[in-house]
Amino acid sequence: MPHDADVEKVVIVGSGPAGWTAAIYAARANLRPLVFAGRPKSSPTTILPGGQLMMTTEVENYPGFPHGVTGPKLMAYFEQQAVRFGTRIVTDNGLEPDVSNADDGHSYSYQDCARVDFSRRPFVVSSEDGTEFRAHSVIIATGATANWIGLPNEQRLARMGGGVSACAVCDGALPVFRDKVLAVVGGGDSAVEEATYLTKFASKVCMIHRRDQLRASKIMAQRAMSNPKIEILWNQVVVDVLGENMITGIRLKDTISGAESDLPVGGLFAAIGHTPATAFLEGQLELDAKKYIKLRDPYRSTTSVEGVFAAGDCVDSVYRQAITAAGMGCKAALDAERWLADKGIE
Amino acid sequence: MPHDADVEKVVIVGSGPAGWTAAIYAARANLRPLVFAGRPKSSPTTILPGGQLMMTTEVENYPGFPHGVTGPKLMAYFEQQAVRFGTRIVTDNGLEPDVSNADDGHSYSYQDCARVDFSRRPFVVSSEDGTEFRAHSVIIATGATANWIGLPNEQRLARMGGGVSACAVCDGALPVFRDKVLAVVGGGDSAVEEATYLTKFASKVCMIHRRDQLRASKIMAQRAMSNPKIEILWNQVVVDVLGENMITGIRLKDTISGAESDLPVGGLFAAIGHTPATAFLEGQLELDAKKYIKLRDPYRSTTSVEGVFAAGDCVDSVYRQAITAAGMGCKAALDAERWLADKGIE
Repeated sequence: MPHDADVEKVVIVGSGPAGWTAAIYAARANLRPLVFAGRPKSSPTTILPGGQLMMTTEVENYPGFPHGVTGPKLMAYFEQQAVRFGTRIVTDNGLEPDVSNADDGHSYSYQDCARVDFSRRPFVVSSEDGTEFRAHSVIIATGATANWIGLPNEQRLARMGGGVSACAVCDGALPVFRDKVLAVVGGGDSAVEEATYLTKFASKVCMIHRRDQLRASKIMAQRAMSNPKIEILWNQVVVDVLGENMITGIRLKDTISGAESDLPVGGLFAAIGHTPATAFLEGQLELDAKKYIKLRDPYRSTTSVEGVFAAGDCVDSVYRQAITAAGMGCKAALDAERWLADKGIE
Repeated sequence: MPHDADVEKVVIVGSGPAGWTAAIYAARANLRPLVFAGRPKSSPTTILPGGQLMMTTEVENYPGFPHGVTGPKLMAYFEQQAVRFGTRIVTDNGLEPDVSNADDGHSYSYQDCARVDFSRRPFVVSSEDGTEFRAHSVIIATGATANWIGLPNEQRLARMGGGVSACAVCDGALPVFRDKVLAVVGGGDSAVEEATYLTKFASKVCMIHRRDQLRASKIMAQRAMSNPKIEILWNQVVVDVLGENMITGIRLKDTISGAESDLPVGGLFAAIGHTPATAFLEGQLELDAKKYIKLRDPYRSTTSVEGVFAAGDCVDSVYRQAITAAGMGCKAALDAERWLADKGIE
């Protein structure tokens, strides 16, 4: 069911900091971008409109807000700004800006992108309901979701700012974690990185690992084991998160003996990896071993397909911050704009 | 005159979006960063505390501000946020946060960085008054200044939002330029890029060039010459900018005949290059032919000297936006934090 309109100049897939920033810049360049903002599903690990910040409460490190701002409010501001300059959003009712509920979050009538075909030009981008949009250029900004342990109490406390997080750099400095015993779940390099980071604030950091040795590289494992503030609890898995409105502890199960024990902690950080939301791009764009989109030039936003640009956490396994994603979104829009001008598509 | 305190963990040189964002992230990582914020001098082309945004009025494309924000106010917010988390600033009176006048701009008692010595470890960073600070790591975020024609009326109108700008991407979409005849001064690739961008909004774009052919690459020159909305005025220099509070025209002088003529325009865009503020780094860090700092890994912020990181317009000749600079500042702080952790400097 092809959409009858002209070929779109730029279609943007994703509505986190990278997607909306790309939209702001593309809209100001008069490209009238069309955004697939995603759609929340029942699982807490599906892509939310607004991205990972919708899972957070207070954001203290997005520059420009000295007193902090909530994640959902910040994303509503981004969206309003994109719409103000002419961004259109694919919704259940057609193409429209929908910012009526922006201050309370989103109205959730967005359509998600189901499929792309980059083998044809113009490209084809299809929505869930089967509508096909043709596009001269596409910006992918679908992000990545933190992997969680998958416990109901973990998700409940994470959503309410109850001391459960998947990002030490984002949340570690919050006063609520100061001088507390904190738990980090995971055993890879980034788990060690997060645990080390948290020792700046915590009285002690317990790394919870299901095996009897770390997956981390040797140098990182040594760093964890030689840090007097880090204790590694081997052969343990978290089976419950305790606390009503604020975490009070975690229930551990010994993977060898099967014995359960409770560990009182003031915070829990999941550090068991991220999953980039790129499954729909398999066979369309070059991805790396961990399914992140490969950039042709790491300083820019170009991908393996000319005219397709990528930005934000779906290309970034290193920094994963709102501000870095937004910077990349701007790059993608400017790269797309210049590429369209090169091709004479005005 | 060495400063007696311990060795600083991170010294940041520069106070634009990149510098303050690096400070926000470094401060939240408990590194107590020390910032050289610069000092305004009489010439309009010297580095301002706050960077290039201090030359602008309304900023419409920094994500998070749907109704826009003035450049000086945005930079005051950045600074307040950095100071809130423990950033210290080198001032004439010692080390202190100074945000008393933040809403009206800055109090201008900052010290500038005069010299660095990266051949020793810890590094040495010296202020104008000769005080030497020792630092384990340094983040350079000194920016770049747009080159201006150098006319008093040009500077006056640029500072008051009177239709004179050095950034088409930043300002081209402002309503004041809509359907006007706009002038672009310059003849290089980026002048053609800016002129092409402005044709989206302008009724006509006049490129003013002092020679009888463009310096731009052949393909870019062809693009300018084949665009029906672009007219190139050859062998012309701008000798005055006309208008009291808003530009009404420019006075041109023919470089061959010497004849002067007035051209009515609704906007003037300088596109005659940028000068990165890196003179004090000659011999200390690897710079490219145009004096931008070379990154060792273009995805990150690492430079030719281990422990020295760079961010913002002093490394960026491509995008030059507040949001891209801020993203790089975040990268630099996280890179510095991880490098210090690697080295066991906590």
